[in-house]
Order: sequence, then C-alpha cells, then structure tokens
Amino acid sequence: MRPSEPLPPRGFDRVEYQDRLARAQTLMAREGLAALLLSTEPEVRCFTGYLTRFWESPTRPWFLVVPASGMPIAVIPSIGAALMGQTWVTDIRTWAAPDLADDGVRLLADTLREVAGTDGQIGLPDGHETHVRMPLADLRRLETLLRPGQITSDAGIMTALRRVKSEAEIAKITQACQIAARAFVRVPEIAAAGTGLDEVFRRFQMLCLEEGADWVPYLAGGAGQGGYADVISPARDMPLRAGDVLMLDTGLVWDGYFCDYDRNFSVGPPSAKTQAAHARLIDAADAGFAAARPGATAADLYHAMNAVLDQGGGETDAGRLGHGLGMSLTEWPSLIAADHTVLEPGMVLTLEPGIATPGGILVHEENIVIDEGGAAYLSPRVGSEMVCL
Amino acid sequence: MRPSEPLPPRGFDRVEYQDRLARAQTLMAREGLAALLLSTEPEVRCFTGYLTRFWESPTRPWFLVVPASGMPIAVIPSIGAALMGQTWVTDIRTWAAPDLADDGVRLLADTLREVAGTDGQIGLPDGHETHVRMPLADLRRLETLLRPGQITSDAGIMTALRRVKSEAEIAKITQACQIAARAFVRVPEIAAAGTGLDEVFRRFQMLCLEEGADWVPYLAGGAGQGGYADVISPARDMPLRAGDVLMLDTGLVWDGYFCDYDRNFSVGPPSAKTQAAHARLIDAADAGFAAARPGATAADLYHAMNAVLDQGGGETDAGRLGHGLGMSLTEWPSLIAADHTVLEPGMVLTLEPGIATPGGILVHEENIVIDEGGAAYLSPRVGSEMVCL
Repeated sequence: MRPSEPLPPRGFDRVEYQDRLARAQTLMAREGLAALLLSTEPEVRCFTGYLTRFWESPTRPWFLVVPASGMPIAVIPSIGAALMGQTWVTDIRTWAAPDLADDGVRLLADTLREVAGTDGQIGLPDGHETHVRMPLADLRRLETLLRPGQITSDAGIMTALRRVKSEAEIAKITQACQIAARAFVRVPEIAAAGTGLDEVFRRFQMLCLEEGADWVPYLAGGAGQGGYADVISPARDMPLRAGDVLMLDTGLVWDGYFCDYDRNFSVGPPSAKTQAAHARLIDAADAGFAAARPGATAADLYHAMNAVLDQGGGETDAGRLGHGLGMSLTEWPSLIAADHTVLEPGMVLTLEPGIATPGGILVHEENIVIDEGGAAYLSPRVGSEMVCL
Repeated sequence: MRPSEPLPPRGFDRVEYQDRLARAQTLMAREGLAALLLSTEPEVRCFTGYLTRFWESPTRPWFLVVPASGMPIAVIPSIGAALMGQTWVTDIRTWAAPDLADDGVRLLADTLREVAGTDGQIGLPDGHETHVRMPLADLRRLETLLRPGQITSDAGIMTALRRVKSEAEIAKITQACQIAARAFVRVPEIAAAGTGLDEVFRRFQMLCLEEGADWVPYLAGGAGQGGYADVISPARDMPLRAGDVLMLDTGLVWDGYFCDYDRNFSVGPPSAKTQAAHARLIDAADAGFAAARPGATAADLYHAMNAVLDQGGGETDAGRLGHGLGMSLTEWPSLIAADHTVLEPGMVLTLEPGIATPGGILVHEENIVIDEGGAAYLSPRVGSEMVCL
C-alpha cells in the first residue's frame, strides 16, 4: 500500500506562487491589463494552490481576481472559505451560494471595479482550450455592471504562464508518471484472456490508487483483434480474447498534477503485423523525442513522428500526435502541423503517435519534459516488444 | 470483486432518448426556439447517451444541435466519431480538432443556419448551474456568423428536462447508491486510529471500485476532534486519532449516473456532545424526508430540516441543505429558502443537513427519490448512532 518511490513534498513553497504572480503581472503590464478574471479550476489553482475535487459540482461559480500589482483576491462561495483560508490568499470575499437572485455577480463586479477602476481593462481567458466557468447570463450581467468593453481577452497570458512548468511542478508530474508506471507493470495481475474489459478498467484504477494516486480522473482504452475502435471509450463487459490488443490510457493525479500516457498489451502472442505496427509507434515516439529540444517547435515534433508513421498504416482520427499536460490532462501546445509554439525548458509534453491497422487503431503515448539539453522521459520509455498477457 | 446486487442493464432503450427529445421539442415549441445548442457533457449525453471520460480533456469543444423537429445533430471533433457512431445519432459532423484557425465554429454556424434558418432563435443554456463549454472568443465569433441576437437563452428547458428522472435513470442512481453503501460498510476494514487520512481516502476509492463503481469522480471528507473544518477538502496525511469524527462523502458513478452521500464515523467512542450532534443531523434528514412529497417545494424541505437544526448548533457555510443529482454530482433544485421548485415524482435529491460544533462542522447526507406517495431512500438511511472505528 506504500508508494515505493520517495515522494516529493506536497504543495509548493510560497515562492512558487510569488513567482507565478510576478510573471503574470509582468505580462499584464505588457498587455495593459489592470486585472485578470479567472473562473476555472486550474486557473484559480495556479495562483492559489486551492486544490479540491469540489469542482466536480457544477453548481457554484468561483472567481479569482489578479490585480496588476498586489495579491490575488478570491471571490468564492462561502463553502470554500475554510479551505481557501489555508492558502496564501488573504483577501477572500464570499457569498452564500447558491443564490438564485445574484450568485456572486455583484460582489465580483464590485471587486473588479475596486481593482481596475472604470478605465482599466480586465483580461478573461478566452482562447483555445479555455472556457468561462459561470452561467452565460451572469457573464452578460457582469458586463452590464462594468464599462462596455472593459472585459476583454487575457491575450493568452494564462496559456503562456501555464505552458512552462517549474521544477516543483515537474516533480509532481514525475511522481504521477511513476505511480502509473508501477500500475502498468502490474497489469498482468489483473488482465488475461477471459477477463472482462470493464473488470480490467476497474481493477487498473485500483492499482493506480494502491500505487499512490490521489485520484484517477481519467482512464480510457480499448481492446480488439489487432487494434481498437478508438481511444476514448469507457469499458464494456466484453471479455479479452487471444489476439486482442489491450490499451489502457490513464490520467491519474498526484498532488494536483497529471500524468497522461498509455500502454498496449497483447493477449497471447501478437501477430507479426500487430507487432510491427507497435514497433513503428515506438519508432515514431523515439523520433519525436529526438526532435524535442529548446528551439524546436510543436510542429517539428509532429513532422518527426509523422514521417515515421507515414511509412506504414493510415491516419487515425485523433487530430494530433501529442500535447502539453500539467494541472490539466491536456494542455497547450498541440503536436500538429499548424502549432508553431517554440519549445522551452520546462514544457511537459506527451508524444502520442497513432496508426490505423486492419483491426482499428493503435496508439502509443509517453510523457517527456523539455530540458536545456533536449528532453527527458517522465514515463519509462517502453521498447518495441509488446508485453504479453 | 463482483457486485453482490443484480445490475440493471447498461445504456438505455432508444425510447428513453425519443422521450427526452420529444419533451425537449415540446418545450422548444412553447418557447419559440428553432434549435438548442448544447456544449457540456451532461447536456450532450442527455440526448445521445454519449458516455466518455474524455471530457476530462479541456482541449476540444463538442456540440449538439437539437432541432425543433427531427433528430439531434452532433458537431464534434473527429476523435469522437467512432464512439458517437455507436449511439442512436446518425448525423455526425466532424472536424479535425484541435484546429487553431477554426475549431469547429464555421461547421457549427453552418449547421445552426441549416437548422434554424436566419429567423429561428437558438437556445443556449445560460442559467444557474450551467456554463458554455467553448472558448469565449469562439462563442463571440459564432455570434457574428449568425443573426445578431439569434443565440438566446434556452429558457431553462434543459433544467426542466434534467430535473425529473425516468425510472431507468433512477435505477442507475440506485445502483450507484448501493455500490457506495457496500463500500461504506467496509470502512472499518481500512480506517482506525493511526491510519493516515490520505490512506483512508485512497483505500475508500479502491473499495468503491471493488464494489462495482465505474469510476470515482468525487471523494471529499475530513476528520477532526468532534468535527471537521469543511466538507470539500482533499485528504492530508494526518493520522486519525481517538475522538476524531471521520466523514467520507463520495460521488461515484455507475453507467454515467452519480450517487452523492456521506457517512460519519467515530474513531473510538464519540463524546456525548458529538453523538448528540450526529443524532440531530439524522433527525433533520428525517424531517426533510417526511416533508418530501409531490407538491412540496425545495424550500419546504429546507425549512423542515432547518427547524431541527436551529434547535442546536450553529450554521455551516454550505449555503444549502441538499440538492438534485443525476448525470452530475449536483443539480437543480437547491434546498434553500429561496428555491420554490415544486417537487415532482422522479426528482432525485440529497438531504444534506449540517451543523456547526465546537470542533468544526458535522454534515450528514442521504439520497432520496420523490415518488407518487412521498419519497423513498436510495441510500440506506442510517440511524443516529455513529459507527465506531
């Protein structure tokens, strides 16, 4: 029941939040923003460390206001006051949510006016991979309480900030990857010909927890003869059969940070074609890894992997060959031809090549971090031979 | 490893979706809406049965367009095509997401114009407990591609629709409740004085899975001398001590439906005060249950419970004394004085009285369904004596 690897400390030193805040405020000054208005779990957590699974409840909106200088202000339901009070945030303004007449909108408007005045622009994350976690009618009402046009885009500040991880963040992602690695090693304990796929999913989550995961927000996968239909389905009760490829793709969390990688297993010995397809995926991931260094772009990694994949098999429907990860299961950038994000030390990425096979698709995934010299694996790179169950 | 209770079938008969669609279209006709535009997991699943944990990834937007007559149209990333193709939806329009230049907005606009023309109004859920799950910049661009003002409120249609559950939905929630009940019975196996709270949380999730949960999206709780600080915190590694009250509150999922209830345990025998506070919570929940019948309001249940709570202890910061549940952990209505929702057969509710104690707070929670004659427990009602660990 004990994780076998040494654990990094939970939480962060205050300097981590001071640094994030300073970086945000530098970017805000550059963009001429008087405040950031944040509403989603990773956005709020980024500046506070406020970590709770209560975001699973869609009922209540939560807000964090980041001023151009000074400390963030939490504008939150009273149910969160005790936990927010344990963070470094001291200005915590609450209302008794849910309030059907005014669910924090006036309190938020007052706070924003106090921070930004009537002249200052308020940046709201509005770009790719974001959403605003509050009722649209409330957002529209908030806009009527402020100067028209006062709420504007955050100009990608949150994306730029979250895309590069600190050493302390990387240590948490590494821990998540190591927990998953120990669970993957134990898959032969729980899966064999005849085992229901739903049972495999259930027991794999138990392994992740037993090996030290705090929770397991994501598990998908598939099983089928020489491939599977997709990589996002929940499990059915279909039993595994000889010749199936079983894929498990987990995003487990340790101290608020995700891993996100998969492993493929062969039920009995794989066919030569299936083994060759798996080996090609490993080659593709290796090519992505070799291309991964500061100064290369997300597109470079895509092309490096795609050059290997193009030599055999067809395309999958995944839409990309990897992505960032961190406080969320998936983050910027995307490993696609159109994403020219320049890689920097501290970016954590998945390499996720996929290939169409006669049986469906096969997808392989590893997690890496960009460092000064190139890249390093956070998940333990697997070889081209599939593990047989 | 096998659930000990008979399992209802997974999924729904097609008639379930036909019925939901017909009810929605009746309400749409009443409100003069030519289409509904849906973007969140439960909204999309409501009309499709599209069940995947892939929503954990915030990268890609997903859309469902419900026309005034005829079948829903899915406008989704290509990675979801295979799984959506297994539902009853036949009109599935995809794009290769993520697309940094146009992440489905033009495809969505074309679909909405096809369905609603230039005259028809398009209803978007915008009220309490909703949000729009797409980048705000994309929503604003979508609005420019349509007639100004063409996107409007859904007038609460989705709330009205989801608030009342079918028998098949109630069977799934019941199953989730029973799984949690079996896990709660086994808490003495995993928790005792000296056990770390983080270890209890980890092993309780394993018990939920072992007893049949598909996944465990929510677990919160606390432990402390005669009470705990809040009910939404993740676990710390603090060991349980004699005199602690341990509370575990789980929202586990079976076939896409949640339970949401908690149990309090005493580490060693409870003090007389703690035992009395727990007994008062049970009395309050009983009073809520007694008031729960068709024709009563959410506020009636709040007042019934509050009358018991007011006799001892102070208020907590929770903001309400219960809520709906179903495809989401928390749903409408709220058991607060201001919520005058009239209860109907098929509504599934939590009764969640809380009380402030010298040690912090104590919260108790049960799940019930409104039926023709009054209400029925879905969670097994506990008595006033706390289970001792």
